[in-house]
Amino acid sequence: MQHAFDQAIALTPTAEGKYTGSTSPAYANMVGPFGGVTAATALNGILQHPALLGEPVALTVNFCAALADGLFDVTARPVRTNRSTQHWVVEITQPDASGAPAMVMTATAMTAARRETWSVDDEPMPAVPAPDSVPDPTQLPQVEWVRRYQMRFIEGGIPADWDGGGSDSQTRLWMRESVPRALDFCSLTALADVFFPRAWLRRATRVPVGTVSMTVYFHAGAAPLAELGQGWVLGQARAQAFRNGFFDQAALLWSEGGHLLASSHQVVYYKT
Amino acid sequence: MQHAFDQAIALTPTAEGKYTGSTSPAYANMVGPFGGVTAATALNGILQHPALLGEPVALTVNFCAALADGLFDVTARPVRTNRSTQHWVVEITQPDASGAPAMVMTATAMTAARRETWSVDDEPMPAVPAPDSVPDPTQLPQVEWVRRYQMRFIEGGIPADWDGGGSDSQTRLWMRESVPRALDFCSLTALADVFFPRAWLRRATRVPVGTVSMTVYFHAGAAPLAELGQGWVLGQARAQAFRNGFFDQAALLWSEGGHLLASSHQVVYYKT
Repeated sequence: MQHAFDQAIALTPTAEGKYTGSTSPAYANMVGPFGGVTAATALNGILQHPALLGEPVALTVNFCAALADGLFDVTARPVRTNRSTQHWVVEITQPDASGAPAMVMTATAMTAARRETWSVDDEPMPAVPAPDSVPDPTQLPQVEWVRRYQMRFIEGGIPADWDGGGSDSQTRLWMRESVPRALDFCSLTALADVFFPRAWLRRATRVPVGTVSMTVYFHAGAAPLAELGQGWVLGQARAQAFRNGFFDQAALLWSEGGHLLASSHQVVYYKT
Repeated sequence: MQHAFDQAIALTPTAEGKYTGSTSPAYANMVGPFGGVTAATALNGILQHPALLGEPVALTVNFCAALADGLFDVTARPVRTNRSTQHWVVEITQPDASGAPAMVMTATAMTAARRETWSVDDEPMPAVPAPDSVPDPTQLPQVEWVRRYQMRFIEGGIPADWDGGGSDSQTRLWMRESVPRALDFCSLTALADVFFPRAWLRRATRVPVGTVSMTVYFHAGAAPLAELGQGWVLGQARAQAFRNGFFDQAALLWSEGGHLLASSHQVVYYKT
């Protein structure tokens, strides 16, 4: 039995670097699928490519339009291959009313052969209670994809009262998939998008939102990720500015052992 | 007399969304030009496009290969235009040995019609001394582009002794162009890349480095930027992880009045 996440990001090759995929009801959001899974699907198009060099280091996805439920097309193209790095352009399209391909996601990525170097984490994991001592939340948004994740909020949980009284935009939570699955680049990409909208927290007001661009920098390679298995990931997210209908989010993801696995940023449309 | 920055990012249109540009000796780096100017040039390809909707909100550039001194080609393509947002793909190429176009930069961007909304800065400007009370540095890297900027380091200046003794990766500095020029999206993009490499600071060791991907989120619109004129910009940058030959940099840029103008992130190759 394939994991729901692997079903959701699955791609059927139709030519080199060309695939078809299909949205998964298991990851349904308010409109279309959970963006983290679409981002992971774009990355999967690179990982499945026969010309791939190395492992992902940087990924940027741009949500151009809502993905409609159903089939979509993915094109992943290595546009520059150097000795130890490779640059990628990815596009996801769906037919428009006339049947012509319309862009729903653009992405760029850099993959590289990781090598051993002097290394240091300069952003230590904050002191937080262990996952087992943090209760599950009593309420979560009623959208399907949220059920695919366990989320244990340490601070900055979903407001209990939507009273406009927010004062801070930082959330810290332990998170992992509800059905165990070992960590990899695709699941980490999706985890980077699990945080509920900062605008909801900062104002304790549910406003319409939509991520327009997200970047993930991967600080751990495939082997250390796999060793973590179905480990808890500590996520921290906060906004830095809300202005003119867009806010940013800076996020960090650590392993339970305190290694920084990824840093991620996104800019999100909001309506007030 | 055109400002050196405007000369450096100038593009000559050859067709809709197609331009030629030329590297500027005024912004020469160790190898090729200062990356911040190349990023600004990619953005300029969007800003010059007749189909442009709105103003830049998000820009990601990927440095695929060193730009050789001389001519280059820029293609800027609006790939999705919505009611109030527009998504872009930009490519910069130079001919390879056989004359075929080789990718030197890929970029994606989102532009949008800014509107008045509830707004707040959630990352207040740190308390720092005023620009006039901070001395100019006694030494700076001996590359040409550095002369185009004034940099007054408040903390985390360039190490005086390259003794391997670094302990922190945070820099705060006041910066502006040496020859006055009003702030705009292109100059702000370049300013986001002015920070010297975090690896040099963290280890007090000069190691080879090169940015591979940079993202800028613009929090101020064209009019507020223009009102700042040739104002000082407070820049803050720090790394979060150095691992496997790549480190990340999280940067924030405020106006002297304390408004967050941009948040920016990059991932940088380093050799040890």
